[in-house]
Amino acid sequence: MSAIKYELIKEDKRSGARVGKIITPHGEIPTPIFMPVGTRATVKAMLPESLKEINAKIILGNTYHLYLRPGDDIIKKAGGLHKFMNWDRPILTDSGGFQVFSLSKTNDITEEGVTFRSHIDGSRHFISPEKSMEIQNNLGSDIMMAFDECVPYGADKKYTKDSLEMTTRWAKRCKEAHKNTEHQGLFGIVQGGMFKDLRKQSAEQLIDLDFPGYALGGLSVGEPMDMMFDLLDYTTPLLPKDKPRYLMGVGSPDALLEGVKSGIDMFDCVLQTRMARNGTALTSAGKVTLKNAKYKEDFTPLDDKCDCYVCRNYTKAYLRHLVICKEILSSMLVSYHNLYFTLKLMENMRNAIMEDRFLEFKHEFEKEYGII
Amino acid sequence: MSAIKYELIKEDKRSGARVGKIITPHGEIPTPIFMPVGTRATVKAMLPESLKEINAKIILGNTYHLYLRPGDDIIKKAGGLHKFMNWDRPILTDSGGFQVFSLSKTNDITEEGVTFRSHIDGSRHFISPEKSMEIQNNLGSDIMMAFDECVPYGADKKYTKDSLEMTTRWAKRCKEAHKNTEHQGLFGIVQGGMFKDLRKQSAEQLIDLDFPGYALGGLSVGEPMDMMFDLLDYTTPLLPKDKPRYLMGVGSPDALLEGVKSGIDMFDCVLQTRMARNGTALTSAGKVTLKNAKYKEDFTPLDDKCDCYVCRNYTKAYLRHLVICKEILSSMLVSYHNLYFTLKLMENMRNAIMEDRFLEFKHEFEKEYGII
Repeated sequence: MSAIKYELIKEDKRSGARVGKIITPHGEIPTPIFMPVGTRATVKAMLPESLKEINAKIILGNTYHLYLRPGDDIIKKAGGLHKFMNWDRPILTDSGGFQVFSLSKTNDITEEGVTFRSHIDGSRHFISPEKSMEIQNNLGSDIMMAFDECVPYGADKKYTKDSLEMTTRWAKRCKEAHKNTEHQGLFGIVQGGMFKDLRKQSAEQLIDLDFPGYALGGLSVGEPMDMMFDLLDYTTPLLPKDKPRYLMGVGSPDALLEGVKSGIDMFDCVLQTRMARNGTALTSAGKVTLKNAKYKEDFTPLDDKCDCYVCRNYTKAYLRHLVICKEILSSMLVSYHNLYFTLKLMENMRNAIMEDRFLEFKHEFEKEYGII
Repeated sequence: MSAIKYELIKEDKRSGARVGKIITPHGEIPTPIFMPVGTRATVKAMLPESLKEINAKIILGNTYHLYLRPGDDIIKKAGGLHKFMNWDRPILTDSGGFQVFSLSKTNDITEEGVTFRSHIDGSRHFISPEKSMEIQNNLGSDIMMAFDECVPYGADKKYTKDSLEMTTRWAKRCKEAHKNTEHQGLFGIVQGGMFKDLRKQSAEQLIDLDFPGYALGGLSVGEPMDMMFDLLDYTTPLLPKDKPRYLMGVGSPDALLEGVKSGIDMFDCVLQTRMARNGTALTSAGKVTLKNAKYKEDFTPLDDKCDCYVCRNYTKAYLRHLVICKEILSSMLVSYHNLYFTLKLMENMRNAIMEDRFLEFKHEFEKEYGII
């Protein structure tokens, strides 16, 4: 029995979009869902209570970062990541793979695993599929991810094929090494770069291994958005209908809409909180760059269609003042709004799918947001 | 009629300590009280709701900072500082005097006022008593402070005497220039440096002007703590019993205890939030420097005698991790605790005075905290 179950509730007749729910040891998650990213055991500038207020159902933790600091051994001693960070709802941890390749100095990739130097202090480390499982077992996340190689955009077909086949072998080793199947579910990650036939090969190999959920990795790595959307439309339907599908590291409003349309159930992205720390807000009318002088005496809320705590209590003029002064409260309030806005978008998509008006909703949103 | 009233509720028989309440247009304040500092229209890293949760009754805003950014004209247009920053409880604003002398490049002090250069962009500005009143009227604080010269520690007697006499003349001009007496009360500031006879002279001159409250300024400017406590014991009893007494810019636990003992009712200090941003917590057993390696696997709360949100939900090991990673949440959580700790100390002092055990309480606290 897997620790993770998925129930398909409704499929859109005119697109791949679907509503469902994921059942985890720490509660149920309505899908499609967006997962705020809590890289280092905190969703930046957000109290856990604020995350609950905006109806966050699941958050993400990063294995690479938590392994380096404070160390998964310490989090295990603390009683696991949930307890350590005061979050009793579901947590998904990634495998560390993406960060090992993107953040650290990678010394060596072999069949056995990856040797790399920490981006913090240059110390040498080795992560293998088995080690990734050990770390994630120590963290105690509800959903774990298999250790994969995320090939960079521009990799040639030979490299990409060899890599995806190693990722499959690693996925098998992950499954065998995963120690806590009763309380933690393990998802496989489809690779294959920008090549449709390789995406298909990867999906088929992973489906053979029978994971309780599947992710699409190696997308949004620098390719044009249209190429990503095209690959999404091709690959998502290859995944089993009765399992959740997760598009990793993607979360701009346009990509969320396209992803849901192709049949994706789960998303995560640092965009919402990173933009917030730079003073940029997501609103129904598009992005608002608060530093802009035109907001100096703008005493209206960030988004007049938004009913969140920030939009009910603060003006653009005040938020601009906080951004200009680099006050911590600016990161707190804009992160709050950006995450609320995104979670609300997902809720609106779920409702639209249930009411057979997903494509209409998508079109209206895109028009108002200024995408089309 | 003044916008500010004070009721003396109980005097300690064995010290100057007293319990009372201040009645303001935005609500009542039990005294002695500590006022968290919201320099630039935000108490750093704290949501207004969190301030209410920890029972903050009044906060401070800084006239100098708000005049420069975003400008008091913008705050006036926003409907005043309360509305601008989403805080409906009392606000006290300082006069700008202290910052003009300590933060900016002061070009010229004359009888008319002070010409200075902004610490932000070097632009030239002029603040007079009348201008300070205009700014504070625009901000709409409940309690305004008269514009004063804060003489540096080490100033000679001649300079200090001339300065305090000018401060008295400025106080008179402030009273005449203050436009909104119905909704904002104006406090006078006693100067006189480290000279008892000059403190007496300043106090007498200001009492003649009949303000609804009096502050002691120019203390904690570099002098030894004992010298400050001695001056406090001497000067505080010179102030009228039926008016609130405010010790400006002072708020370490030892100074709060000594100040209350001498009869002070109001305190403010940036120490609590500044220390928090450096990862240092105030606890009943003294200061805790979270960066210290000994907390790496310390799964106990910051202060086992504290019942605040932070101490109920987080461990030192987690807080240390956040501090080491420079996560915003570390500033949020430690600020929350430090302010809660300080407000609770004030509440405990009020209770002790009411129950005729103030000196005993003070002694016990100091012993546990490690002051004595």
